[in-house]
Amino acid sequence: MSATKKITIGMLGCGTVGAEVARLLLSDIPELSTRSSAPLELKKIAVRSGGARNGIDASLFTTDPLSVVNDPAIDIVIEVMGGIEPARELILLAIKNGKSVVTANKSLLATHGADLYAAADKAGVDLYYEAAVAGAIPIIRPMRESLVGDYITRIMGIVNGTTNFILTKMHEDGLGFDEALAQAQALGYAEADPTADIEGFDAAAKAAILAGLAFHTRVTADEVYREGITKISAADVALAKSMNHVIKLLVIGELTPEDAISVRVHPVMLPVSHPLASVRNAYNAVYLEAESAGQLMFYGRGAGGGPTASAVLGDVVAVARHIADDSIGHRESDYADREIAPFGSARTRMMIRLHVADKPGVLATIAQAFAAQGVSIQTVRQGGAGNDAELVVVTHQGLETSLFALVNDLKNLEIVSAVESVIRVEGVN
Amino acid sequence: MSATKKITIGMLGCGTVGAEVARLLLSDIPELSTRSSAPLELKKIAVRSGGARNGIDASLFTTDPLSVVNDPAIDIVIEVMGGIEPARELILLAIKNGKSVVTANKSLLATHGADLYAAADKAGVDLYYEAAVAGAIPIIRPMRESLVGDYITRIMGIVNGTTNFILTKMHEDGLGFDEALAQAQALGYAEADPTADIEGFDAAAKAAILAGLAFHTRVTADEVYREGITKISAADVALAKSMNHVIKLLVIGELTPEDAISVRVHPVMLPVSHPLASVRNAYNAVYLEAESAGQLMFYGRGAGGGPTASAVLGDVVAVARHIADDSIGHRESDYADREIAPFGSARTRMMIRLHVADKPGVLATIAQAFAAQGVSIQTVRQGGAGNDAELVVVTHQGLETSLFALVNDLKNLEIVSAVESVIRVEGVN
Repeated sequence: MSATKKITIGMLGCGTVGAEVARLLLSDIPELSTRSSAPLELKKIAVRSGGARNGIDASLFTTDPLSVVNDPAIDIVIEVMGGIEPARELILLAIKNGKSVVTANKSLLATHGADLYAAADKAGVDLYYEAAVAGAIPIIRPMRESLVGDYITRIMGIVNGTTNFILTKMHEDGLGFDEALAQAQALGYAEADPTADIEGFDAAAKAAILAGLAFHTRVTADEVYREGITKISAADVALAKSMNHVIKLLVIGELTPEDAISVRVHPVMLPVSHPLASVRNAYNAVYLEAESAGQLMFYGRGAGGGPTASAVLGDVVAVARHIADDSIGHRESDYADREIAPFGSARTRMMIRLHVADKPGVLATIAQAFAAQGVSIQTVRQGGAGNDAELVVVTHQGLETSLFALVNDLKNLEIVSAVESVIRVEGVN
Repeated sequence: MSATKKITIGMLGCGTVGAEVARLLLSDIPELSTRSSAPLELKKIAVRSGGARNGIDASLFTTDPLSVVNDPAIDIVIEVMGGIEPARELILLAIKNGKSVVTANKSLLATHGADLYAAADKAGVDLYYEAAVAGAIPIIRPMRESLVGDYITRIMGIVNGTTNFILTKMHEDGLGFDEALAQAQALGYAEADPTADIEGFDAAAKAAILAGLAFHTRVTADEVYREGITKISAADVALAKSMNHVIKLLVIGELTPEDAISVRVHPVMLPVSHPLASVRNAYNAVYLEAESAGQLMFYGRGAGGGPTASAVLGDVVAVARHIADDSIGHRESDYADREIAPFGSARTRMMIRLHVADKPGVLATIAQAFAAQGVSIQTVRQGGAGNDAELVVVTHQGLETSLFALVNDLKNLEIVSAVESVIRVEGVN
């Protein structure tokens, strides 16, 4: 150990993640100190109501979070309370008081990231957040540092374990959405109110963080186009399966030909040969394409106390090392300041499943509708029986605006009784 | 840009990787400078013989490498010449002269790493080497920094593209080893003298670097147990396939129950469901198990000009940032100083394929040989016809010394005409 000044840690929050972070900080302190080149000490944990818990001594707890962020003896504040307020205010106060901050708070970063980064910059402290996206998977640091000499052109990720668990159950066990959701809830993979996960809000926050890092631009969650998985039916999943595809909820960020950023969250049909297709259950993965590096993928556990604590503690040691030798780490940059492409400007392929009257000439009418929007058909499959035939059309790549205009046209055709599903197809271009 | 002092770069070597690094350094200098917070300039490239090449101006080249490492104006030396000498001497000289070094030289790091790290430490400069293992895949930085708050217990990697290409061809196209090697050579995936790849020397150097980082201990290439893939036959691959396995050349590093490090390179039968099993052709991947993080995998291109240049330039920008704000990065630590476990102390499962006389009681004799060495049989499959029957036995996990003693016993049995193959089985414990 080169330095002997003790580095003191305070925590905000002690839920599943916080309790695991505190447990490891208390039990592994000698080894973590060695790795930090400085003795570490966990001094205080702010919680909503006092008393010992999770085997942690009662004396460590305080119900006054200000006593953590204003304590002059505390060097590093770990924020694992979640939510926007009071987390935002407390972090800003900690930064203003010269403390480095480690946080797992994706919603906060995806909405108020710019303010937080600017405050950290001004105060000359570290703001680290490896745990905010994809849990234990090292993705923030590789994007911010390892790939800093390269140009990322595309990022695709499975970053929400709940929806991936649900879609895996639908794919492997043939469950419907409601059944699969109920199973996820029973197993603790989904919350009682699952909206944030199944409607893609959680993924959208992570998409904003990832796209911002990848393209050196500030991106906020509300700039991310978002569709959840609630409309995905057992029939869609079975159909995808029959076509050697899986349906996944992906975050996608890519540069458009105009050098703008297209960033979106929606279900996607992926060929089973795609590296992301085999990411099952609650696992996460982030797939990248970079100009020199080519294709890269990072895979691991996206949530849970242990995995998230691993990411938090990696940041704590990194930040402690900086404090020990009086340096700071490098944060993401926003020099490129690219535009966010409007919805509809992405290019994608689509699988459109529709029911039509089983009459001669139907296919010609349908084909004409595609041609009218300039959408080219890759394959068409006709099924069903009686008066009601099912058509499954997969398009070539086209502009989303044209594809959605086409879907609208199809709905208005007299011979079309229903457009059952419209799912983007990716990973085969 | 916060700093304005120019940061000057010199290079040693200009082969495939070097030429790509130089090309990108020259063409992307404004953006790389922005990301480094300092203007970068490539000043000199030392090569064996002068003259313009790869579209790079002749004035940049010198045939005197000392003029690079001794140039007081040069801040960062990129070493991409390869080999032990004179690379070692030149890097040590550069470090002594206060220059930070970025290298892709795995053999050098795996043999003289300790000297180089100590020299960099003493001189207070950076020694970065992301490109030395698994090309473009960010693995050094994640292990050294992201996972520094966790405890890695096991690492398994496909880190040699040549052998993975050969094994993929054998698996997918049913080729024999010689045919697959010839194809790899024709496509430029294998060298005219393929020894370093097919005998596992290249992988062993990378295994030493990875195990050293994972277990905070110095490990050298000659401490790595090594077996190549030359004994793998088409029959072995077909057999593995029939058992839903693939054969891969893996580097494995793990902690033994005695807290020593077992580090080895050898062919392994992996179940197709293992994340590493689907890594095809020249791709690389590193799979990790850590106490809190759980399973992680990093996947991408392991070699080639572009991917390796991506890793080199990521390091160059990181090092330039440190120079710009007068700090240094953190290097791997060796505080744990663990023992290297002797060969044979690893626990593994084995697939043993042998030919036996087709007589009553043969299986009993074989089973007795297993029992005598305390090796427990998981499955046994009997095939073949006439006087010559083929037995395929898969064991439960046992100590390698017992397993190899058993193989020796089997060879000495009168009823055994040949032990055709002995392949470890991993990934199913």
